[in-house]
Amino acid sequence: MIERIYEARHRLLPYIRHTPCVRHTPYRTPLAPNLSLKLENLQLSGSFKIRGAFNNLLQASPEQRERGVLVASGGNHGLAIAHAAHRLGLPATVILPQTAAPDRIARIRSWNATVILHGDNPSDTLLYAQNEAQERGCLYVHPFASEATLAGQGTVGLELLEDVPEIDCAVIAIGGGGLIAGTAVALRSKNPDIRIIGVEPAGAASMYQSLIAGGLTELRESRTIADTLSPRAVSELSLEVARDHIDEIVLVSDEQIVDAMEILWSEWNQLVEPAGAASIAAITSGLIDLSPYRAPVALICGGNAPVGPVFTAFRDKAAHNTDFPPIHHKLHR
Amino acid sequence: MIERIYEARHRLLPYIRHTPCVRHTPYRTPLAPNLSLKLENLQLSGSFKIRGAFNNLLQASPEQRERGVLVASGGNHGLAIAHAAHRLGLPATVILPQTAAPDRIARIRSWNATVILHGDNPSDTLLYAQNEAQERGCLYVHPFASEATLAGQGTVGLELLEDVPEIDCAVIAIGGGGLIAGTAVALRSKNPDIRIIGVEPAGAASMYQSLIAGGLTELRESRTIADTLSPRAVSELSLEVARDHIDEIVLVSDEQIVDAMEILWSEWNQLVEPAGAASIAAITSGLIDLSPYRAPVALICGGNAPVGPVFTAFRDKAAHNTDFPPIHHKLHR
Repeated sequence: MIERIYEARHRLLPYIRHTPCVRHTPYRTPLAPNLSLKLENLQLSGSFKIRGAFNNLLQASPEQRERGVLVASGGNHGLAIAHAAHRLGLPATVILPQTAAPDRIARIRSWNATVILHGDNPSDTLLYAQNEAQERGCLYVHPFASEATLAGQGTVGLELLEDVPEIDCAVIAIGGGGLIAGTAVALRSKNPDIRIIGVEPAGAASMYQSLIAGGLTELRESRTIADTLSPRAVSELSLEVARDHIDEIVLVSDEQIVDAMEILWSEWNQLVEPAGAASIAAITSGLIDLSPYRAPVALICGGNAPVGPVFTAFRDKAAHNTDFPPIHHKLHR
Repeated sequence: MIERIYEARHRLLPYIRHTPCVRHTPYRTPLAPNLSLKLENLQLSGSFKIRGAFNNLLQASPEQRERGVLVASGGNHGLAIAHAAHRLGLPATVILPQTAAPDRIARIRSWNATVILHGDNPSDTLLYAQNEAQERGCLYVHPFASEATLAGQGTVGLELLEDVPEIDCAVIAIGGGGLIAGTAVALRSKNPDIRIIGVEPAGAASMYQSLIAGGLTELRESRTIADTLSPRAVSELSLEVARDHIDEIVLVSDEQIVDAMEILWSEWNQLVEPAGAASIAAITSGLIDLSPYRAPVALICGGNAPVGPVFTAFRDKAAHNTDFPPIHHKLHR
């Protein structure tokens, strides 16, 4: 797997951002003193998902490139695929459940992907997408169950080893488990003692339940505001890697997640989606104590929150100030 | 002045963040191909103002430190002073106009500063603050008219020379002019050919009017959503530096600013205040063309937008998911 991650890194280099890892610490919040934040909300498409997306699309066959890619997604995976497909000139179709947030639909459409709303639960949508992809002969990219996806997400780990060479603990949110699996493999390839702490929403604890049960377990219900962390089951592959590499799992409540979103805003001016604040929630809630670590890192996995009303408010105000014309004036030379 | 900026840098090093400068470029927006963004919205206190604030407070006399600092501010200066004073253990008082945004008041109070609301226009508030400071024997820190403040803000320029060594153009918003003055001096000390482009809201064009008039000019009216760029006059000092170093000035409309805020959100997942998007507005509006430059940089000066409603919406949703208890589970070791 680690070879696949190095290959992915080489493959992705011209296409993605090496995201900032901000090390300085605020003085007053209940965070670890040396904590760094890896800001994957600043990644293209607003989340780490673009890594796996590019890694899949860049390996597509010429026929697949022509027929295009088709995925099911309630969120960041669909957006990442739409973005990467636009960049590479592939047609993209994203199937979303009928309940998908209008904000996400608009973002996906803005990258020229075709959006189809189908089904009212993730399993129906997924099944429909897999069938459609087969019928149309499109490339189908699963959000977390394939090795190419895991290897793509694992490139975050390689960046972290450069950003914080002395890293000794990583706090990472778990949705389908692709991010934590890939990142853990990359980090541990350098130093097997790096502590890996996974964080799930308490209402969507798919990895926790599978690890406890000793096998892939599907939740009967998944209910959390962190919608991009809410698949009802992880994958065999991510579970297998998790078994070897995850040392601790923390389940955070939705309220703790919103608290952490506010802290990320008030201390770092980063507005992120609930999933993006989950790793911070594990710390600020007091559930885990990072003081034993010399260089812990929390991964901010995504930022795609619906903030339209903020702009609407400013646009209303701006409408009162239209009597000043724009000007460009050269003073020197 | 450049010596003062180097001194400031040394002085500030333990207290501020070296903010990220993100170089990778999105593919579809009307931005320059090699544009980098210097994210001062990720600075402590959410804006570059913390640089000048620390540079003033770290030079306060023992008596001043005991009596504390008092400032007038409608925005980021007050927040920066409150933050820096909290960090250094000085009492701080921030005088705001009656019209100040509740969001800003709350942020300033959260750093334990005393907030006093006085006057209904910036000039009244300023006068009151200066009198109060004198009566109480407090340290008074002007938001942009002092050399210590300019030197502090200039440390952004020194960071930029490290972030983008080949920088050949800087696009910087102008409020009181401290940021552009300090940064221009720092950049030009290394390479006098770096092009300096200033951006003002069309409804608060205090630097533009002063440069045109050939002397410090007070606007009769200042009206823009970019409240932190809205002083009715720049200072003698910033005007003097601007005369030597600003090559072009762009006045952007409020509508262009909101457009740029949305682009910063959709392309970079950075939610910023209107002032923070002004430099981008000059580019995305088409008013300036950065294609002749090899390594242009736009400075994102601040991020303190009111986003409370975003959290309220998530908190309402979270209230439906309280039936999942937080858990911390150790798997290995």
